[in-house]
Amino acid sequence: MPAEPSAPRPRTGVWLVGARGSVATTVIVGCAAVAAGLHPATGMVTETAPFADCGLPPLASLVLGGHDTVDCPLPKRAEALVAGGVLPHGLPSAVHGEVAAADREIRTGGPLPGDTRSDEELIESFAADIRDFVRRGGLARAVVVNVASTEPVAMASVATGSVATGSGSGLPASSLYAAAALRAGCPYVNFTPSTGLHHPLLRAAASASGLPYAGRDGKTGQTLLRSVLGPMFAQRALAVRAWSGTNLLGGGDGAALADPGAAAAKNAGKERVLTDTLGSAPEGEVHIDDVPALGDWKTAWDHIAFDGFLGSRMVLQTIWQGCDSALAAPLVLDLARLTARAHEAGLSGPLPELGFYFKDPDPGSPSALAEQYAALVGFAGRLRTAAR
Amino acid sequence: MPAEPSAPRPRTGVWLVGARGSVATTVIVGCAAVAAGLHPATGMVTETAPFADCGLPPLASLVLGGHDTVDCPLPKRAEALVAGGVLPHGLPSAVHGEVAAADREIRTGGPLPGDTRSDEELIESFAADIRDFVRRGGLARAVVVNVASTEPVAMASVATGSVATGSGSGLPASSLYAAAALRAGCPYVNFTPSTGLHHPLLRAAASASGLPYAGRDGKTGQTLLRSVLGPMFAQRALAVRAWSGTNLLGGGDGAALADPGAAAAKNAGKERVLTDTLGSAPEGEVHIDDVPALGDWKTAWDHIAFDGFLGSRMVLQTIWQGCDSALAAPLVLDLARLTARAHEAGLSGPLPELGFYFKDPDPGSPSALAEQYAALVGFAGRLRTAAR
Amino acid sequence: MPAEPSAPRPRTGVWLVGARGSVATTVIVGCAAVAAGLHPATGMVTETAPFADCGLPPLASLVLGGHDTVDCPLPKRAEALVAGGVLPHGLPSAVHGEVAAADREIRTGGPLPGDTRSDEELIESFAADIRDFVRRGGLARAVVVNVASTEPVAMASVATGSVATGSGSGLPASSLYAAAALRAGCPYVNFTPSTGLHHPLLRAAASASGLPYAGRDGKTGQTLLRSVLGPMFAQRALAVRAWSGTNLLGGGDGAALADPGAAAAKNAGKERVLTDTLGSAPEGEVHIDDVPALGDWKTAWDHIAFDGFLGSRMVLQTIWQGCDSALAAPLVLDLARLTARAHEAGLSGPLPELGFYFKDPDPGSPSALAEQYAALVGFAGRLRTAAR
Amino acid sequence: MPAEPSAPRPRTGVWLVGARGSVATTVIVGCAAVAAGLHPATGMVTETAPFADCGLPPLASLVLGGHDTVDCPLPKRAEALVAGGVLPHGLPSAVHGEVAAADREIRTGGPLPGDTRSDEELIESFAADIRDFVRRGGLARAVVVNVASTEPVAMASVATGSVATGSGSGLPASSLYAAAALRAGCPYVNFTPSTGLHHPLLRAAASASGLPYAGRDGKTGQTLLRSVLGPMFAQRALAVRAWSGTNLLGGGDGAALADPGAAAAKNAGKERVLTDTLGSAPEGEVHIDDVPALGDWKTAWDHIAFDGFLGSRMVLQTIWQGCDSALAAPLVLDLARLTARAHEAGLSGPLPELGFYFKDPDPGSPSALAEQYAALVGFAGRLRTAAR
Repeated sequence: MPAEPSAPRPRTGVWLVGARGSVATTVIVGCAAVAAGLHPATGMVTETAPFADCGLPPLASLVLGGHDTVDCPLPKRAEALVAGGVLPHGLPSAVHGEVAAADREIRTGGPLPGDTRSDEELIESFAADIRDFVRRGGLARAVVVNVASTEPVAMASVATGSVATGSGSGLPASSLYAAAALRAGCPYVNFTPSTGLHHPLLRAAASASGLPYAGRDGKTGQTLLRSVLGPMFAQRALAVRAWSGTNLLGGGDGAALADPGAAAAKNAGKERVLTDTLGSAPEGEVHIDDVPALGDWKTAWDHIAFDGFLGSRMVLQTIWQGCDSALAAPLVLDLARLTARAHEAGLSGPLPELGFYFKDPDPGSPSALAEQYAALVGFAGRLRTAAR
Repeated sequence: MPAEPSAPRPRTGVWLVGARGSVATTVIVGCAAVAAGLHPATGMVTETAPFADCGLPPLASLVLGGHDTVDCPLPKRAEALVAGGVLPHGLPSAVHGEVAAADREIRTGGPLPGDTRSDEELIESFAADIRDFVRRGGLARAVVVNVASTEPVAMASVATGSVATGSGSGLPASSLYAAAALRAGCPYVNFTPSTGLHHPLLRAAASASGLPYAGRDGKTGQTLLRSVLGPMFAQRALAVRAWSGTNLLGGGDGAALADPGAAAAKNAGKERVLTDTLGSAPEGEVHIDDVPALGDWKTAWDHIAFDGFLGSRMVLQTIWQGCDSALAAPLVLDLARLTARAHEAGLSGPLPELGFYFKDPDPGSPSALAEQYAALVGFAGRLRTAAR
Repeated sequence: MPAEPSAPRPRTGVWLVGARGSVATTVIVGCAAVAAGLHPATGMVTETAPFADCGLPPLASLVLGGHDTVDCPLPKRAEALVAGGVLPHGLPSAVHGEVAAADREIRTGGPLPGDTRSDEELIESFAADIRDFVRRGGLARAVVVNVASTEPVAMASVATGSVATGSGSGLPASSLYAAAALRAGCPYVNFTPSTGLHHPLLRAAASASGLPYAGRDGKTGQTLLRSVLGPMFAQRALAVRAWSGTNLLGGGDGAALADPGAAAAKNAGKERVLTDTLGSAPEGEVHIDDVPALGDWKTAWDHIAFDGFLGSRMVLQTIWQGCDSALAAPLVLDLARLTARAHEAGLSGPLPELGFYFKDPDPGSPSALAEQYAALVGFAGRLRTAAR
Repeated sequence: MPAEPSAPRPRTGVWLVGARGSVATTVIVGCAAVAAGLHPATGMVTETAPFADCGLPPLASLVLGGHDTVDCPLPKRAEALVAGGVLPHGLPSAVHGEVAAADREIRTGGPLPGDTRSDEELIESFAADIRDFVRRGGLARAVVVNVASTEPVAMASVATGSVATGSGSGLPASSLYAAAALRAGCPYVNFTPSTGLHHPLLRAAASASGLPYAGRDGKTGQTLLRSVLGPMFAQRALAVRAWSGTNLLGGGDGAALADPGAAAAKNAGKERVLTDTLGSAPEGEVHIDDVPALGDWKTAWDHIAFDGFLGSRMVLQTIWQGCDSALAAPLVLDLARLTARAHEAGLSGPLPELGFYFKDPDPGSPSALAEQYAALVGFAGRLRTAAR
C-alpha cells in the first residue's frame, strides 16, 4: 500500500522593506545558500541546539520579497556585493534561481519624489502588495521586516492627523510600511533605528491588531560589545568614567548616518545600553563617519576609561572590524523565523524576549546580553510547546 | 538603666602568603583606606547591593598578616607602590597605623635557600605561625590567601611521598602553605596559578578537613574579558577561528612569568575559558612578556579572528591597560570575606560559586562571567540565611 | 694673580601668554627642574648633540613670566598638575623658589569681560608689561610665546580697522598679544592654532618689525605621527584612501576644543599635513572630544585605510596616549631658546626652519618630519656660526 | 622613405628562488597586470616620478622564471591566492598567457630530501638552469631574487669547507642559490632573512664577481613602521623604554617562522632598526605566531612605552593589517629593475642605496626610512646618467 502523500509543507513569507539593499540582498542570497547546504549557518542563532524542535519555519520554506524604491535588479546587486567582498565569489550564480525568484517578488515602495498619494493611499497600496504576495505564494503567513536605510529622526516629529482617517499626517515612510504590515495582518520587525511602529499614531492600531512585533535597531557590532562589556564593569564594581566611540563605515549606511539626524537615532540606542547596564551615563561621545572607501565594512573603536581600586586609572579599548551586511543578515533570518512562529503560536504585542537582537529592545527586555540570551532561550522553550 | 555593653565585634584574620608583595601591600593599604572612608570601595563586589546583609565580616574587622620570604618593611613597600603609581600619594601615611600593625603580623616563610627542614617541619612551622596569629588577635577565624609570585609548573611534578607521613616529598612551596592552612584549621584561597591545594598529596587532607576552600588564579584582565567575549561569540553563533594574545607586564609578576614554566601555568587558565565557552579551542597563542619599564601596569592585547555569515572574515581586537595590584586587591578582600563567612556558615569543600573570581575555578563552576555572577549572587543569598 | 671676574651671564626672558595654564606651569617647573639637574632633558631637542655650541641661552639663564586672565597662584596650579599625574610628586616644592619667582612675574591679561579698553589700549598695556619685565630683570631680550587656550576660528573674522590707528577693530586676544610683542620689540612664537600674528592687520607691522617669529600650533601627538606616516605611505607608493581620527582629551584644552570653531582651527592643521605629504586629501574626518575624566591625558586614534598592490585593502591604526602638557613643554622651551638666539643673531621674519615643531608651519617649511628635522639641524648650524 | 625598424627592445630576466610561492606568484601575476594596464602600479616605488628616465627595464620587458622544490602549477597557485583574497578575482585568467609562460620557466630546485648531490653539483646545476633561461630568452641579463621561505638560522652555522673547492661544506640552500647566481654571472637580491650571499664561504666569490647584489630581508610591515617611528622618537628626544611586538600570520611564512630558528633570523632585523635609530636597544620582545586562519594576511601589533618630559609615561601602539604578498611583490619588482639597471651601468658589490627596501641592509645604508629614501632617490639620479 502506497504511503499517503505528506501534507505540502506550509511556506512562510519574509517581506523585506528595502529589499534591494545590501542587508536584504545578503539575506536573500544567504538564505538560499544555507538552505542548499553551500555554507554553514554561521551567525544564525536559530540554527543552534537550543532552538531545535521549536517549530521554526525551515530556511527552505521561506519565500522572500519586499518593497524598494530603487530598481537595480537583485542579481546585479548581488554581484556588487561580491566585488565588495561581502559575498563569496560564485555564490550569486550558484543560487541564481532563488535570487531571480525574489527579484520578481519585489514591488515599488514609496513615497517617491513627487508622489502625491496620501498616507492612507500609500498604506493601502503597500498592504495590497503584501496581501498579493501572500496569496500568490499560498503562504501560511508573511513577516514584514524593515531593513531600509535609517531615516532622520526629524521625520518622526509632529504628527497630528490620524492614520485611521487618512488625513495626510506626514508619517515617516518606515511608519507607512509598518501600518501596511498591520493592515495586511502581518507580524512586523524593525531592524533599523527608524520610527516604524514606534509612532504615536500607530499605537492603537498595533495594540488592536493581535499581531506580534519586535524592534528596534539590530545590534550587530559596537552595541553588541557594549552589551557584554557594560555588565562586566558593573558586576566587577569598576567605575566607568568615560566611554567614547567612533564608527567608520561606507556603504549606504555610512552615507545615511552622515546625516546628523539619522546618527542621533542610532546613537541613542548605543548610549541606552550603557546607561542601563552601568546604572548611569558615563562621559563620552559616539561618532559615525561616512568613509566610502570602506564599502560595506565597518570599524568601531571604543575607548573606555574606568577607575579601579583606590582610584587607579585604567583603560579598555576595543576595535571591531566587520562586514555590516554579513552581521545583520543572519539576525534578520532569525527574527523572521521567530516572529513567524510567534504568530503561528498565537502570540501578540511586543516581543521583549527578542531584545537579544536589538539596540533598543521592547520594554521588559533586560539590557545585558547574557540575560537577553537567557530570555531568548526561554522564549524558544515556550515556542517548543506552543500550538502549531 | 544603662544599656548593656554590646558584645565585642568578632574579628577575622586574613593571612596573606606573599604578604610583602604588591598585591598584598595593596590589600593591606586599601582595606584600611576603604574602612576609614578615605576611598570608595571601587572594585569590591562584596560592597555592592546584592551582598548586603549576608553577614560578611566588615572591612574594619579584618586583621591582616602573613608569610613572606623577603623582609622589606611594608611601609617601604607601600611607598614604592606610590612611586609606581599604584597607590595614591599620601595614602600609606594616612593609614600608617594599620600598615605597621600588619607588618608586625608578618612571619618569615620558606623554604629559603639552604633550608634543610623537611616538608613536614615547614608545614608545622607555617601552621604554628597561623595559629599564633589567630590566638594573638583573638580572631574568630583566619582565611589563608595565596598571593605570592607564580611558581613554575615543573615544581608541582612527580611527588610520591605522603604529607601525612612527612616523608619529604618535595611539595611546592604553595602546597606547603596550603597544607599549613588545613592544619591550622583555616579556609584557603589560591589567588595564583600555583599548585596550592591542587596537589594529589593534599587531596585527602583537604576532603577530611571540613574546611571551605576556593581557587585558583584570580581573573583580573585578559581572562576576565575572555569570559564575557567568548560567550558573546558562542551565543551569536559566530565561528571564532583564532584567538591570539600578548601580555606585557613588569613588576614581580612579569619576571616570574618570564619563566616558561610559570607562564604555562597561567596560560592554561586563559585558554581553558575559551575552550569552555566556545566549545572548542581556537588557533592562537598567548605570550607573557616581562617588560620591567611597565612596572605594575600591564597591557593585554587580544586579536580574535572570526567568521560571520557566508564565511566573511571579521576581527575583534581588545587592549586592556590596567594596574595588576589594583585589579587583584579588591578581589582578594572579596574572597577573604566570602570564604570566612562560608566557614562561619559551616560550609566545607570547594566553593565553585566563587568561580566568578578565578581563571581556573573549582569544578562545577560555569565558565561564562554572567553565569558565574549569577552563581555568586545565589551564593550570597545562601549566606544571608545561613547560621551566624 | 686672581682670575678676572667673568662677565655676568646675560639672561633671557620667556613671556608666556597663558602663564597659569597647564603647559606654562609645566614649562616653568620643568625648566627649573632640568636646570637644577633633577630630571634629564627628555623631550628637549635643543639639549641633544646637534644643538651643542649653537649659542642657545642655557636653561639656567631663562627668566619666566607672562600674562594670564586667571589668578590661581602658580604653586597651586603645580600641585593640581601633580594630582593629575602630569608632574612628579615633590617636584613643585623642590623648585618652589623658581615657581614663586615666575608667579611674581605674571601680569593680568585681557580683555576681561566688561573690559572697555580699545585694542590699542590693550596692546599698549600688554607691551608695557613686557617692557617692564625686560627692564626689571635686566634681560638681554624676551621671547613671547602663546600657550593660551585655543580661540574659536570665528574670532579671527572680518576686521576692518587698523592696529596702527587703534580704531577698535576687534582683534582676537591672541593677536592683541602678538601685536604687543612686536611693539615691545620681542620675538614671537605661537604654539597654539589661534590667530596670533596671522592676522591681516598685523602683517605690515610684523614685516616692519625686524623681529623673528614662528608658528603655529605645536605638533605634539596625532599630527606628529601623521608627519612621519604620511611620507612613509607616499615614499612607498601606497594609496591612502581614508585617514580618520578621534582625539579624546580633558583638561582645559578638551573643553576649549569642544567648541566647533576652535576644533576647526586645530583640525585644519591636522589635515594639512596629510594633503601636503600624500599629495591629495584622503577621505576621513577628525574628531576632538572633551572627556574631562582624562584630565591632561589625551588619546588619539587614527585609522588609515590604504590600497596596496593590485588593489589589496590594508589598514594601519595608531593609538597615541600622552600627556599634553608634558609633550608641549619641552618644545616650548626649545622654541624660546631657538627664537631668542635667532634674535641675537639678527634674524628676522618668519622662521620656516622651525616647522619641525608646528602643525601649520611658516611658508617654506617642508611637511615631512624628517625633512623638517634636517632643516632644523641646518638652522642650528647657521646659529653656530652667527654673531653673538 | 620608411622609418628604419627600431632595434628590438632588450629583455631582462627575473629569476625567482621560490618561484611557486605566494610572493613569486603575486610578482608574476602583478607584473603582467600592471604592464597590461589592468591595475595601477600601487606600491611600486620605481613607477613614481623620481625614477622616470633612469633607464629601468620596463615591466613589459621582464621575463619571469625561477626555481622551486614544489611542483604545483602557477595558475593553480594563482587561483589559491584569489580564494585567499590576495589577488582580485578574474586577474589570473586575464593574464593567463604570462602566467603559463612563467610556469614553463620554472626548474626544480633543491636539495630535495634524499638528494645526494654535493654542494658543488647543486650550485652547478642551478647555475646551468639560470644560464639556460638567459640563453633561451635571449635576455640581456637576469637578476636572481630569493623569495623562498625563511630558513632556520641554525642552517647557516659552522661551515668549514670551501665553495671554491667544492668540498661539501653543507651550505644552506639559500647560499647554494646565491652561489649559482654568481656563477651564472647574475646580480643577486635576497628578499628574505635567510643567509644567501651572507655566508663566509661566499665572501670572496662575491667580491671577485664584479656583480651588484643587495639584501637582505624585505621590509614590508612592522619594520617599515619602526624605521619611521624610531627616528621620530629620536629626533624628538623622547626616551623609548620598551618596544614590544607581536606578529600574527598564516600562509607559508607563518609556518616557517613558527620555527624558532627562522623567527630568530627575522627578529634580528626587526630589532636592529630600533637599536640603530634609537641609539640603544629598548626592552621588549618580538613574537611571530603562525595563525593559519589568517592565510596570507598578517597583523602586527607594536606597543611602545616611552618617557616624556619630567618622566611622564606615555604609550604609542600601532596595528598593521596587511597582505604579505601584496606588500612584498611590488618591492621585488622594484629591486629586480634597479639591480638589473645597476648591472647594466657597470656597478658591482653591495648596493647600500637599496637599504630602503630591507630590514637588514648592506653596510653603509642609513637606518631611518627618510634617509634611506633620500639615498634611493640619489641612486636613481646616478642611474639616470649612467651608461646604457
